[in-house]
Amino acid sequence: MAVYTEVADEELSAFIDTYDIGKLLSYKGIAEGVENSNFLIHTETGHYILTLYEKRVDPNDLPFFLNLMQHLAERKLSCPLPVAARSGALLGTLAGRPAAIVTFLDGMWVRRPRPEHCEELGRGMAALHLAGADFNMVRRNALDVDGWRPLFNQSGERSNSVVPGLAEEITRELDFLEQNWPKDLPTGVIHADLFPDNVFFLSNKLSGLIDFYFACTDAFAYDVAICLNAWCFEPDGSLNVTKARAMMNGYRQVRPLSQAEIDALPVLARGSALRFLLTRLYDWLSVPEGALVTPKDPVEYLKKLRFHQKVETASSYGLSL
Amino acid sequence: MAVYTEVADEELSAFIDTYDIGKLLSYKGIAEGVENSNFLIHTETGHYILTLYEKRVDPNDLPFFLNLMQHLAERKLSCPLPVAARSGALLGTLAGRPAAIVTFLDGMWVRRPRPEHCEELGRGMAALHLAGADFNMVRRNALDVDGWRPLFNQSGERSNSVVPGLAEEITRELDFLEQNWPKDLPTGVIHADLFPDNVFFLSNKLSGLIDFYFACTDAFAYDVAICLNAWCFEPDGSLNVTKARAMMNGYRQVRPLSQAEIDALPVLARGSALRFLLTRLYDWLSVPEGALVTPKDPVEYLKKLRFHQKVETASSYGLSL
Repeated sequence: MAVYTEVADEELSAFIDTYDIGKLLSYKGIAEGVENSNFLIHTETGHYILTLYEKRVDPNDLPFFLNLMQHLAERKLSCPLPVAARSGALLGTLAGRPAAIVTFLDGMWVRRPRPEHCEELGRGMAALHLAGADFNMVRRNALDVDGWRPLFNQSGERSNSVVPGLAEEITRELDFLEQNWPKDLPTGVIHADLFPDNVFFLSNKLSGLIDFYFACTDAFAYDVAICLNAWCFEPDGSLNVTKARAMMNGYRQVRPLSQAEIDALPVLARGSALRFLLTRLYDWLSVPEGALVTPKDPVEYLKKLRFHQKVETASSYGLSL
Repeated sequence: MAVYTEVADEELSAFIDTYDIGKLLSYKGIAEGVENSNFLIHTETGHYILTLYEKRVDPNDLPFFLNLMQHLAERKLSCPLPVAARSGALLGTLAGRPAAIVTFLDGMWVRRPRPEHCEELGRGMAALHLAGADFNMVRRNALDVDGWRPLFNQSGERSNSVVPGLAEEITRELDFLEQNWPKDLPTGVIHADLFPDNVFFLSNKLSGLIDFYFACTDAFAYDVAICLNAWCFEPDGSLNVTKARAMMNGYRQVRPLSQAEIDALPVLARGSALRFLLTRLYDWLSVPEGALVTPKDPVEYLKKLRFHQKVETASSYGLSL
């Protein structure tokens, strides 16, 4: 649930008038998105999403995100298309915040993904990787293997208040990952946050990808590993191999995985599990008393990490090697 | 901000399929409304609002509210029109809650109403009073003069923690109002909560009235008194007579006020100020530590009450007597 910034009708109407999208007819704050304030707006030409970027987004990264969405949409990937103001700018200022308007995308995210959704996701993710191949901007992944230890240090020994012994367990895992993190895998634009709530479906067909505000330049197979964690585990913490196999099959129909990528998957899955464990741990320990948002449970990702530590080869994910 | 109930996509799609409005294409929780959960939904036939009624609404009152909106919309008053399911029912059940779908209304509420908005509001309110004249259902105003003392008793002496001496001041006002409350004024359907956020405008013309969940059968002039308090005071607590006069003029263009109604206005305005003081006081004292919603300031309505206590005749509101 998130509308962090209130916007007055006159101020918003004036902002809309700097675009060629007709007069503003209505706007509603949307109770979605954790990082930014989002409004569904209706103008004389249609429906759009207006986003005000709040403090967790670095304004210097916004041109990368907006140009990427424009690049992908031009290549027929179904994602929000940033709308340019009359001046040509994709980014404006509203209520003291960076602000952008993107096209509205129909579709709904699935609360309980089934194997057919995972296969669709695999195909869509591979299509994203291909469509981004000739995008000429680069953004380092701020949450890659080099970023995890500094991030962990902000939680440190306090981690033990969440799970006894957690600080030592994470330190051991960091040691392992820093020594064994794969290099030289095929790299390009990845979404890096392709959780179910960022993937829209219509009649069980993928209809769009949204929320590119973690997108960066990194190994394609790391995106696959993130989705393995985000889509293919059951609520009880076990891997659903049918879903994993479906996702991998879907991906490989569109973009083949090299042997190096397949071999790297267990380590990438450990790294991805640790990355979300660390950010959730930080949020869990940083949340003020009586906060608006309940932080997500870090233990879910600790369980996934422990699962991947026992995996020897990608065959455990349903992949034929 | 309010989406109290999460709804799964499959459950919602199945619910939509009981209506003749096409397949569900998208839905977004709206960060508006304090009492209920609201979703903006898009189907193959257009945009609608889906409301799940939460615990503050008595389910027994819902037929009154929904039939009233239908009645008013049929008489060309611009308000949400409840959509009937294939079964003919205006009310269904979703996620364990009573649920209804109404048509989507364009327009925006004005954060800083000007006199021309107040005149439009006056006309719209009078049109509502006329359109409701032949509505054949009755709902007692649960927050009328008989309800205020029991409501106050739930705050009681704790009121003094908000403003020293407040409990005694309210008790004196209750004594006065119970003895001097006007009887036999013209009565019918009133909105009873026509605050700026429930009135939509497009290009400074009133485009619709929403949120009929306090509507009831009471004196028309009491609705006028509520709007006097809600629309015509400045942030510093002073009455803006230009706005009050504009609202009264707008109202009388559509429905004349009788001499008895005009004479009763100062007492009705005191009663209306007390009614909102009491509910805000109750919310203020009842809010749990670290709650999601910041309660509205009761002192705003104490100041308005004190203003009306000094008013002798309705001429203070800009009315020619």
